[in-house]
Amino acid sequence: MTEATFKYVGTGRKGYATCTRYQGSSRCASRGAGEVPFAGDQKIEHLNDDFFGTGIHPEDADPEHLFRIASRARIGVFATQLGLIARYGADYRDVPYLVKLNSKTNLVGTSQRDPQSSELHHVRQAVELRDRTGLSILGVGYTVYLGSEYEPMMLYQAAQIVNHAHANGLVTVFWMYPRGKAVKDERDPHLVAGAAGVAAALGSDFAKVNPPKVGGPPDAALLREAVAAAGRTGVVCAGGSQASVPEFLQQLHDQIHIGGTVGNATGRNIHQRSLDEAVRFCNAISAITLDDAGVDEAMKIYGGGT
Amino acid sequence: MTEATFKYVGTGRKGYATCTRYQGSSRCASRGAGEVPFAGDQKIEHLNDDFFGTGIHPEDADPEHLFRIASRARIGVFATQLGLIARYGADYRDVPYLVKLNSKTNLVGTSQRDPQSSELHHVRQAVELRDRTGLSILGVGYTVYLGSEYEPMMLYQAAQIVNHAHANGLVTVFWMYPRGKAVKDERDPHLVAGAAGVAAALGSDFAKVNPPKVGGPPDAALLREAVAAAGRTGVVCAGGSQASVPEFLQQLHDQIHIGGTVGNATGRNIHQRSLDEAVRFCNAISAITLDDAGVDEAMKIYGGGT
Amino acid sequence: MTEATFKYVGTGRKGYATCTRYQGSSRCASRGAGEVPFAGDQKIEHLNDDFFGTGIHPEDADPEHLFRIASRARIGVFATQLGLIARYGADYRDVPYLVKLNSKTNLVGTSQRDPQSSELHHVRQAVELRDRTGLSILGVGYTVYLGSEYEPMMLYQAAQIVNHAHANGLVTVFWMYPRGKAVKDERDPHLVAGAAGVAAALGSDFAKVNPPKVGGPPDAALLREAVAAAGRTGVVCAGGSQASVPEFLQQLHDQIHIGGTVGNATGRNIHQRSLDEAVRFCNAISAITLDDAGVDEAMKIYGGGT
Amino acid sequence: MTEATFKYVGTGRKGYATCTRYQGSSRCASRGAGEVPFAGDQKIEHLNDDFFGTGIHPEDADPEHLFRIASRARIGVFATQLGLIARYGADYRDVPYLVKLNSKTNLVGTSQRDPQSSELHHVRQAVELRDRTGLSILGVGYTVYLGSEYEPMMLYQAAQIVNHAHANGLVTVFWMYPRGKAVKDERDPHLVAGAAGVAAALGSDFAKVNPPKVGGPPDAALLREAVAAAGRTGVVCAGGSQASVPEFLQQLHDQIHIGGTVGNATGRNIHQRSLDEAVRFCNAISAITLDDAGVDEAMKIYGGGT
Amino acid sequence: MTEATFKYVGTGRKGYATCTRYQGSSRCASRGAGEVPFAGDQKIEHLNDDFFGTGIHPEDADPEHLFRIASRARIGVFATQLGLIARYGADYRDVPYLVKLNSKTNLVGTSQRDPQSSELHHVRQAVELRDRTGLSILGVGYTVYLGSEYEPMMLYQAAQIVNHAHANGLVTVFWMYPRGKAVKDERDPHLVAGAAGVAAALGSDFAKVNPPKVGGPPDAALLREAVAAAGRTGVVCAGGSQASVPEFLQQLHDQIHIGGTVGNATGRNIHQRSLDEAVRFCNAISAITLDDAGVDEAMKIYGGGT
Repeated sequence: MTEATFKYVGTGRKGYATCTRYQGSSRCASRGAGEVPFAGDQKIEHLNDDFFGTGIHPEDADPEHLFRIASRARIGVFATQLGLIARYGADYRDVPYLVKLNSKTNLVGTSQRDPQSSELHHVRQAVELRDRTGLSILGVGYTVYLGSEYEPMMLYQAAQIVNHAHANGLVTVFWMYPRGKAVKDERDPHLVAGAAGVAAALGSDFAKVNPPKVGGPPDAALLREAVAAAGRTGVVCAGGSQASVPEFLQQLHDQIHIGGTVGNATGRNIHQRSLDEAVRFCNAISAITLDDAGVDEAMKIYGGGT
Repeated sequence: MTEATFKYVGTGRKGYATCTRYQGSSRCASRGAGEVPFAGDQKIEHLNDDFFGTGIHPEDADPEHLFRIASRARIGVFATQLGLIARYGADYRDVPYLVKLNSKTNLVGTSQRDPQSSELHHVRQAVELRDRTGLSILGVGYTVYLGSEYEPMMLYQAAQIVNHAHANGLVTVFWMYPRGKAVKDERDPHLVAGAAGVAAALGSDFAKVNPPKVGGPPDAALLREAVAAAGRTGVVCAGGSQASVPEFLQQLHDQIHIGGTVGNATGRNIHQRSLDEAVRFCNAISAITLDDAGVDEAMKIYGGGT
Repeated sequence: MTEATFKYVGTGRKGYATCTRYQGSSRCASRGAGEVPFAGDQKIEHLNDDFFGTGIHPEDADPEHLFRIASRARIGVFATQLGLIARYGADYRDVPYLVKLNSKTNLVGTSQRDPQSSELHHVRQAVELRDRTGLSILGVGYTVYLGSEYEPMMLYQAAQIVNHAHANGLVTVFWMYPRGKAVKDERDPHLVAGAAGVAAALGSDFAKVNPPKVGGPPDAALLREAVAAAGRTGVVCAGGSQASVPEFLQQLHDQIHIGGTVGNATGRNIHQRSLDEAVRFCNAISAITLDDAGVDEAMKIYGGGT
Repeated sequence: MTEATFKYVGTGRKGYATCTRYQGSSRCASRGAGEVPFAGDQKIEHLNDDFFGTGIHPEDADPEHLFRIASRARIGVFATQLGLIARYGADYRDVPYLVKLNSKTNLVGTSQRDPQSSELHHVRQAVELRDRTGLSILGVGYTVYLGSEYEPMMLYQAAQIVNHAHANGLVTVFWMYPRGKAVKDERDPHLVAGAAGVAAALGSDFAKVNPPKVGGPPDAALLREAVAAAGRTGVVCAGGSQASVPEFLQQLHDQIHIGGTVGNATGRNIHQRSLDEAVRFCNAISAITLDDAGVDEAMKIYGGGT
Repeated sequence: MTEATFKYVGTGRKGYATCTRYQGSSRCASRGAGEVPFAGDQKIEHLNDDFFGTGIHPEDADPEHLFRIASRARIGVFATQLGLIARYGADYRDVPYLVKLNSKTNLVGTSQRDPQSSELHHVRQAVELRDRTGLSILGVGYTVYLGSEYEPMMLYQAAQIVNHAHANGLVTVFWMYPRGKAVKDERDPHLVAGAAGVAAALGSDFAKVNPPKVGGPPDAALLREAVAAAGRTGVVCAGGSQASVPEFLQQLHDQIHIGGTVGNATGRNIHQRSLDEAVRFCNAISAITLDDAGVDEAMKIYGGGT
């Protein structure tokens, strides 16, 4: 009862869909599950920094804001910790969820100690929550800090998670982040490609990476090495923190059409807005990612303003 | 058999009640369980410092003093280690208990080594004690030192505790304390809010935090960020150590009515008094917390003197 | 199947007896089990220092000396490692035993590394030995080094041991020793009281402490804080190493009648003597502890000489 | 259900075959399984360094390149991580696989911290994958860094892997690499022999070692001590990174006919070539290893060019 | 199913035999099992140092040399790692085996890090090998480095091994070696005695110690303290590395008749010789140990030459 048999249907990014078959039946994560994740694990990862302060809409102060966005917008999955899903899920049954299995706070910096992020929950607990509540839990997520002195523990947990997730019809998304005293440049394209390749070697469905850059701003073409290295593992970019809406959408479009990624995992850039604006922003992202919309068309969906 | 389905009945703080349903039946922690905990885990946490010495009533030297108070006063739960409940519980069957699952002494300071507090007992042992003895064990407690180098272990244990507690109809209260070499100011309002948010992400019913302050004395309004960040997780303040009774009750009133907390977890301030005075003090606290009494009314219950 | 229901019969020290009831039946440790333990775990704790050398009777060189004493003298329990009980027990079936579950050698000093003493055997293995052989195994013992950097591990093992021991009708005796870089004065009365209180919070039946002292020689009155802090957990003093027999017996008498302890756990002071003298010395100790004999009467039992 | 009974059929290297019998039936790894492994675990071990860059054929950028080679060339087994086999195996059912059970990245160097490589998957997961999919999974691999401060963990995992692999009809190949602050010269012939001997003491079927050398280039005769020390454990050499094709094939021929090894595990030297060239190169290697071809004959198979 | 009941039959060393009874039946290790172990765990402990080099017979380069000696000579048990027994045992079914459960290489020295040697296999795996193959596996061995910072782990594993071994009719031999930064003089007689006493406290059948010495060469009389401290645990001396055959046999005779040991565990001194000489040397050792032969008689068995 380990890995399921994965079938990749169709050709090219458009036809990309993830189906897992296990124990006689089959289960397909709806298209977009891994391509348009709405990342909401920051309440542990960044404490309250992303939710309260200058430039952040007051609605973001309440964790329910995340669920309201996830419920009204067109997203692939809403990725957050199991505790929040268990608490709010009953009131947001229409949301597709991804359980982020590990998290750490940002208090202990790399200069003090290499990053270590351990499982909070086991895959079986995500499965139990899904099966008991009937919530649409489609996948699990996990962060691997390559180059950390705790890498062996995280590689082990990650490999095990793929096995258990696939055996239970869940998609996996791995945050592949090189980090630690041994890592000189986390955004080096060759290193980012290596990280994406590790996700492939672990058998993950998706690898989330930080957009590589050399000196200047990120250049979507730099993603090609990572996309190639990942093989059948889909690459999604982290959303980052700063950019005007048109800039953001242009970058996303470039990441997909120039870099070859399958999508983008965005968090702060969405939920720091008002509910209404966040929903429109999500829909613009989904249009580019799932419908091949151009930036102008996406901007119309967003409805204007930066 | 993990998380139970939580239902929050009514609106606003008054209607706040925690019900867990599992395995067909349901179990509701009586209102006040998390709002008015009487904290009595200091025999490990502070050794004998809180129980014997100048200004401490001689009755406090005997651990049974805690049970006598818990038995006669109006409290939500008496939070203490499982060993004491197992030993004294049969003689104090009317007390609602909360099992504090982890504890450490105060001997090893943060300057020597970051705080690490490991589970002493597993949730199943609290459940077994409840089921075998019929004692009214309503919940479990656990301290998380965010920012400690041992944070990964504690986050893992905390997440697991919520799962197992809710599956067995127990409420969870997490002492959310940022502490360690990486933590500059444990009382920073933004950091306290982050800590409360972590408790929410873990799915805990209640987060106990130290009252935030900026420079001067604690200002109840500073709690609002934490209360917002905690969402459906109720915030209770630690009782602290110094304050006259009217000052203490005024602070509690402010924490609830200005800060938005659901109550207060007090220990030393109660049990360092004589049994009679401690009972009256508890009742004054409960009046403010559960009955919306004003400070004057509460002082009448307390019966005068500082 | 965890903690048993403990019943404390009678009033005062004399009536002190420990009964555990579990799984329908009951089992009572004979009075004295915890009050008069003969401590024999030094073959690991002190290597051969206590068994061979100047001033030590040659009979002590052979581990069987311990069993011979335990067999002929009036003691509560003979506390030693499971391996020795398994090997010699069949030939000394009349001895009441207590299995010391953890031990470490004295080679690595505190200046090099904080003390860490891990379980050698699990409670279930003591239970299996008891049930398979029919030996009179009445309890288990464990050392907790409070203030050590390994305190979390030892507190966890200790808490678990109480649970498993009580579920199986075994009494627990905890050696509560503050030790480590963080501990300035192991004999400080307030700290010793804190250590005794931790044993109470863990639910142990007995706490063995080193006699507190301030500057000069131990003063039995200094024990009162610890006895109070321990509540229903009986306090026994470690026997120490130097003292003439009348001095030793006077200290024991004072510890009980002034300090409020329930007895004394002595090792070296007994087994470093010839078999005959050791037996008489044990009997003198038991007379004071269990029969309320005075020092003069006990000296008659001992038979004179220092 | 641990070690199977191993039968070594025939005489000399040619007759070398590994059969494991368990649970009544028998299973024989086809001849060559351990002698001609195609090593493809570098996506974790070396990140993207071996797959993209100057002098590397562009086809190597895609992990599927490895499977295409393994499918078309004559190899013993294709050794790679379980995640890749699970993902691509269904499309390459004709490939004989060996699951590399542990891997680490090259980010944390020995100067920072001794190498630690932990199991990613357990033997039972390789067995489950084999039994569920019907893929031809013939063995498991594991790297042991002798001399690392983490040696105890790796020796334990390695010993357990042999037990579980043999009980399930899987061959074991151990990468035996002395490495760490304590290791002065990883290629010292006496040390390499010691490493091969450890693999024998662990009961592994094959030991992969780096070719020993003293000062100058590797001298195949230096392998004899290792081959003797390994006894019935077959020694295979790591392929290394630099050498022209004729040089490489001559070294391989010498390792077998002078050094006494049973073959060679090559990775980079194969997959950094185009598919067509890689296949011809593999076939040249297999001709020398399995058919006793000379270098000239093998060069004809390779088809020319360096 | 833990410790068996041990019966010591007869009187004095000659009558020394170890029988374990469990689960209704009984099993007796043939006399000599612990007294004349042929130690062959050096392929991990010393890498290839003991098997290849100046002064070592070329036959020793092949691990099968050990089995050939064990098969033809009169020994108690051949102590080696499970992997070698699993591989060669079928061809040497007449050999009595002892599985050495832990081993480490000699690469990481004490000056770098205190010695840590972890179990490679569990007792149950030795039992399974015995029961599945019918090989004569009589016991298990384990090294304990007292005074190492990893002492707690090794004491725990050792204690557990005794329990599991005795429950399954296996004899235990513990290599009791004080070693680590805290150990000033590993050969100090008092410390060696302490180490032997720890083996007794763990319940081991035999303790292997290095012969104590004070300044000059080992003096067999110095062993008496250790033999006394070990009680019913038989003491055997490590064979050491240098000595002419008559010197070696005289030392052995003295260790037994002056020091009171029950035998000697020799490795290098045996297997570094040719098969024929090694067999004669073993037989000479056995004659002294088991038949009370004198040195001259033993030298005749050995057949002359130094």
